[in-house]
Amino acid sequence: MYFVILAGGVGSRLWPRSRRQMPKQFLNITSPERTMLQETYERVADMAPDDHFIVVTSKAYAPTVREQLPQVPEDNILAEPKGRGSAPAIGVAALFVRRRNPDAVMACLSADHFITRTKEFRRALRAAEKAAKEGYLVTLGIKPSYAETGYGYIEGGEVLMKADGTEIRKAVRFIEKPQLEDAQRFVADGNFYWNAGMFIWQASTILDAFARYMPDLYQRLMEIEAFWDETGKVGEIPEEIWLAIESETIDYGIMEKADNVAVIPADLGWSDVGSWATLLDLLPPSDDGANVVVGRHVGIDTRNSLIFSPERLIATVGLENIVIVDTGDVILVCPKERAQDVKKVVQYLEEQGLYDVL
Amino acid sequence: MYFVILAGGVGSRLWPRSRRQMPKQFLNITSPERTMLQETYERVADMAPDDHFIVVTSKAYAPTVREQLPQVPEDNILAEPKGRGSAPAIGVAALFVRRRNPDAVMACLSADHFITRTKEFRRALRAAEKAAKEGYLVTLGIKPSYAETGYGYIEGGEVLMKADGTEIRKAVRFIEKPQLEDAQRFVADGNFYWNAGMFIWQASTILDAFARYMPDLYQRLMEIEAFWDETGKVGEIPEEIWLAIESETIDYGIMEKADNVAVIPADLGWSDVGSWATLLDLLPPSDDGANVVVGRHVGIDTRNSLIFSPERLIATVGLENIVIVDTGDVILVCPKERAQDVKKVVQYLEEQGLYDVL
Repeated sequence: MYFVILAGGVGSRLWPRSRRQMPKQFLNITSPERTMLQETYERVADMAPDDHFIVVTSKAYAPTVREQLPQVPEDNILAEPKGRGSAPAIGVAALFVRRRNPDAVMACLSADHFITRTKEFRRALRAAEKAAKEGYLVTLGIKPSYAETGYGYIEGGEVLMKADGTEIRKAVRFIEKPQLEDAQRFVADGNFYWNAGMFIWQASTILDAFARYMPDLYQRLMEIEAFWDETGKVGEIPEEIWLAIESETIDYGIMEKADNVAVIPADLGWSDVGSWATLLDLLPPSDDGANVVVGRHVGIDTRNSLIFSPERLIATVGLENIVIVDTGDVILVCPKERAQDVKKVVQYLEEQGLYDVL
Repeated sequence: MYFVILAGGVGSRLWPRSRRQMPKQFLNITSPERTMLQETYERVADMAPDDHFIVVTSKAYAPTVREQLPQVPEDNILAEPKGRGSAPAIGVAALFVRRRNPDAVMACLSADHFITRTKEFRRALRAAEKAAKEGYLVTLGIKPSYAETGYGYIEGGEVLMKADGTEIRKAVRFIEKPQLEDAQRFVADGNFYWNAGMFIWQASTILDAFARYMPDLYQRLMEIEAFWDETGKVGEIPEEIWLAIESETIDYGIMEKADNVAVIPADLGWSDVGSWATLLDLLPPSDDGANVVVGRHVGIDTRNSLIFSPERLIATVGLENIVIVDTGDVILVCPKERAQDVKKVVQYLEEQGLYDVL
């Protein structure tokens, strides 16, 4: 098995910790010791040798990836000249894997997601590997714990096969972020799963799918392969080819269209750590008030709040469900329920060209 | 006229700006250019020569007073070995003034109060001077704008005299911080005024009142005067005498008991700047959201909040009526309505011995 870690995101909803130069996957956000990228690697490190790990990231982040994952061979770090969405990133990784072994199964993982049930995750991956070898495009479907409208959903159908007791079901339908009513219906129905963006397939299967459903992208991938053949610079992504590629997600480009898609229902304690609110729900409380605290905090009547301030004392009085993040140069204060709108601050700063705090 | 500025307060409700070493009267809280002490002096500076200004403060703050008011002769800064409340502070100042001129009128002002209507204030002081020369203990009574329960009230009675068109009324009663219902009744009645702690009287009149209503304190004051006579160190407060004095306010010790008390109703735009909430109401808004901002602030849906952060960017989303104060080493976040409880944080820090942030 190969592991493709997608590490090109910008993570603007975790600003001000997540920054243009150092987005959330490179930060120790979910664990004090390790960055999210390192946690992603560690979770599956012993399932494959280090030269089976491939990281796709943007050019600017490649040095950080090398620093944080020195075990992974430098050649395996694929540096995009510019972000083009998940489809091109997975495409170039599939190309890279296929050269090593056309029959290889590759698991695509996000570098900035959180999983609590590692054992269950690894069991699901092994089952997925078996289904992938049968020619399926496999995705992990997370049993939804509530009607989240910020995630996509997958409708599960008939059982296609079983592997080590794990059911592998046909993915009937991919639904992008739904309205609340629909989300509630999905949760009640029991046959719908969160699309966690984790995909397992043979390199050759996904490249066939690119050829069929995304022929333009496939054409560009072939040009990249030709460049590798000509120059011997395998893994290098030529800017002129890359910039001609249109941005697209793998969900929209392939998963919603292909007919050989399977879903493995899994209960992983998974989160995309998509906002400060998610993180507050995720991390264990630090005090009697159910606050999550990193740093020095004095709270009078303060409950269920996230306080991040490794250097300065934060004093709070009479707060509930509030996020306070102090990064030394910037302080964010935001109610938990408005955490999604942190990206509006980032947008404003971008519009104003305030790059010193972006 | 002499001016006695009382500058010994600790101002814990404006923590973390107000600190043990540098409480609010020494900070530029209500004006960008001048400290509250300097504003107190400037408001009346041309009503008397600089050697008619006396500042009573604690020993620890005397160097700061000298630095901030270099115009005031050093000998006029009376340094208390320890705070003993307003009665002893005013007593020692009265002693000091009486030596210069027994008939002199002295106006006692707090170093940490805010007044917007300076002209009206000066008019009231001149009227008070005339009443003081008639032997009255005069206080300024602020027309209440709402039923504040954090202030004391004065009930006004018959008109005793007029000076330059200003009515001087008998003070019938002093009421300490009332219950809300009483405060509402006082405001509706129209004959009640906020006790702003501003007093005007002849040095000899108030010393007579000390002799009558606070004989123990008067006795100590006589010992201090004897020390001045013996040593020639006029203005120095010997520790052994001072520490034997019991703490007491002038309101409780004299004003509530004396029968020659007058009140001058005045509409001064006065505030004791007693909390961050008061300050938020006081200062002019800086933006369309009615926020009061010092420093760099990016606010999405942020209204009626106080943001103080001269160095770091503060970003806020979806906040209303919140106080955020960043002093470099400490950040306070507190709803406006809980501003009184900032002193609980200070108490906690004192209990924990966290002097680095006190």
